[in-house]
Amino acid sequence: MPLSNLDLVNQCDAFPYPESDPSAYLARINTYYQLRVSGHDYALGYMLPSVAEVFRGIPHWELDDDDRTLTLNAGTTAEERSKAVELTLLAMRETGHFKVLNQWRNELYAVYGKKKELLFNVERSASPLLGVVSYGIHLTAYTRSKETGEIKIWTPRRASTKQTYGGMLDNAVAGGIASGESPFESLVRECAEEASLPEELVRSQARAAGTVTYYYIRDERAGGETNLMQPECQYIYDLELPDDTIPRPGDGEVEAFYLWSIDEVKQAMENGEFKPNCSLVVLDFLVRHGFLTDESDGDFIEIVSRLHRRLEFPTL
Amino acid sequence: MPLSNLDLVNQCDAFPYPESDPSAYLARINTYYQLRVSGHDYALGYMLPSVAEVFRGIPHWELDDDDRTLTLNAGTTAEERSKAVELTLLAMRETGHFKVLNQWRNELYAVYGKKKELLFNVERSASPLLGVVSYGIHLTAYTRSKETGEIKIWTPRRASTKQTYGGMLDNAVAGGIASGESPFESLVRECAEEASLPEELVRSQARAAGTVTYYYIRDERAGGETNLMQPECQYIYDLELPDDTIPRPGDGEVEAFYLWSIDEVKQAMENGEFKPNCSLVVLDFLVRHGFLTDESDGDFIEIVSRLHRRLEFPTL
Repeated sequence: MPLSNLDLVNQCDAFPYPESDPSAYLARINTYYQLRVSGHDYALGYMLPSVAEVFRGIPHWELDDDDRTLTLNAGTTAEERSKAVELTLLAMRETGHFKVLNQWRNELYAVYGKKKELLFNVERSASPLLGVVSYGIHLTAYTRSKETGEIKIWTPRRASTKQTYGGMLDNAVAGGIASGESPFESLVRECAEEASLPEELVRSQARAAGTVTYYYIRDERAGGETNLMQPECQYIYDLELPDDTIPRPGDGEVEAFYLWSIDEVKQAMENGEFKPNCSLVVLDFLVRHGFLTDESDGDFIEIVSRLHRRLEFPTL
Repeated sequence: MPLSNLDLVNQCDAFPYPESDPSAYLARINTYYQLRVSGHDYALGYMLPSVAEVFRGIPHWELDDDDRTLTLNAGTTAEERSKAVELTLLAMRETGHFKVLNQWRNELYAVYGKKKELLFNVERSASPLLGVVSYGIHLTAYTRSKETGEIKIWTPRRASTKQTYGGMLDNAVAGGIASGESPFESLVRECAEEASLPEELVRSQARAAGTVTYYYIRDERAGGETNLMQPECQYIYDLELPDDTIPRPGDGEVEAFYLWSIDEVKQAMENGEFKPNCSLVVLDFLVRHGFLTDESDGDFIEIVSRLHRRLEFPTL
């Protein structure tokens, strides 16, 4: 069965909505543990009970089974909290508690409070354990025919050896935003690393085009524990490339780049060949450029809203 | 105090969100009456108790104070239901029950069920009484300098004599979608009526670019009763105009068209000169075209999500 566009959205934005399905929403919310920071009485993420349990009794962490909260209780500065988080996670990595920690990246992700202040940093591979919002950039690189105006999209296939989503299709450039890095600087860095795109071209021609936000629930393809909650915010960029600028894999993460027509891209999406969140970025591109409309898809209104889920956690 | 972009969003998307403010959300939901159609046990809109009360005892309407529902109970076809709704509203107009009915338009809006089937049509001026989703089209017409690439936006000022939002700034073309009309045909019609734009140009050059969805609560400027709930879905279009195509008011609803730089438009938004939902359409344009980014606005993530609220009612 070919996947509809709404199927593709449902794959990625998989957490129930309280307005339309309050009982499913509450069942989830009341099962999971809220991650908090002491002095900040609100959820920074939702954690599986089986994950929260592992933090019981560890210094600087307080597990409350009545309130169903896990509270980080370590100093009052981002630096103090980050240090405590790092020590805990390093120990858990040593003891082999969580499979996702085998993908340790030595990259720090930021977790923000309600005043947009940095609360703490967390090792990238551990952020889905805590269920906190992670941030990335996704770039769609495309060409436009001078004669016909036809748009084609540069579509990379991930190396089959990649730990996560190996062999699946991707956006031209995509990557996580490290703590302290701006989305645009992250974009420039990843464009060089992943697609060998000249910095000057990216700086002058890449155009910001909003965000795609959703609430992912990890499956086997992401590697490690499944059912982890992963709210994500992707900063979206478009880049129209001149005919003579060909993206080339830069770091071994990409097997090949294809220059595909809109129909070829749609076909691959229907076939489920895209990494789930990348198909959302393609859908957003198709919406903004008039290729996906109410005439072409009966779920149009729902799709456009779902590409821009309001995250219920503080964000940058 | 200049209005921030988030202030502009808050003006228009004014209904609380259940995830972030469950008590405010539930207080509203539990105060208002749900509009339903018999055999369809879900909300089509929320009605003020004072409005629902007026339907008590009227044939074909059933008010349940325990469930807080108002159910339309008239036949099983859209035609039968529409007729009953029309008779009720015509009578209410005669008896002068509702001020909004003084703006009777003789235009029908469609109300859909969960299977996207037409449940009934309702006179446009009455739709905010029922709290049902209404649909419109909004077009941003702009020019792009061949030399510098600078974009300027055609910005009309509404006639000061207009019943609603007189004298405020608007999008180049905007209008409600009549029942049975497609968004694109509605666009073509309104472009001729409101801005005297050639049909051929609109058909070949206007580009669909998604939707803007929000949950408005009417104030004095909308005319008639205040605090009515008005969930809306606007289909968004962009149209790059050649230098020699000048929009001209076609039907007396517009006083003048200005060709403004992005900075001039932003300034007018800060000053609160735009009709509330039109400023959302401008914000969406600025986001999609890279003029509003995370670097330029600390509320960027929140703004992008809020421009695309997921409506909790069935839609087309």
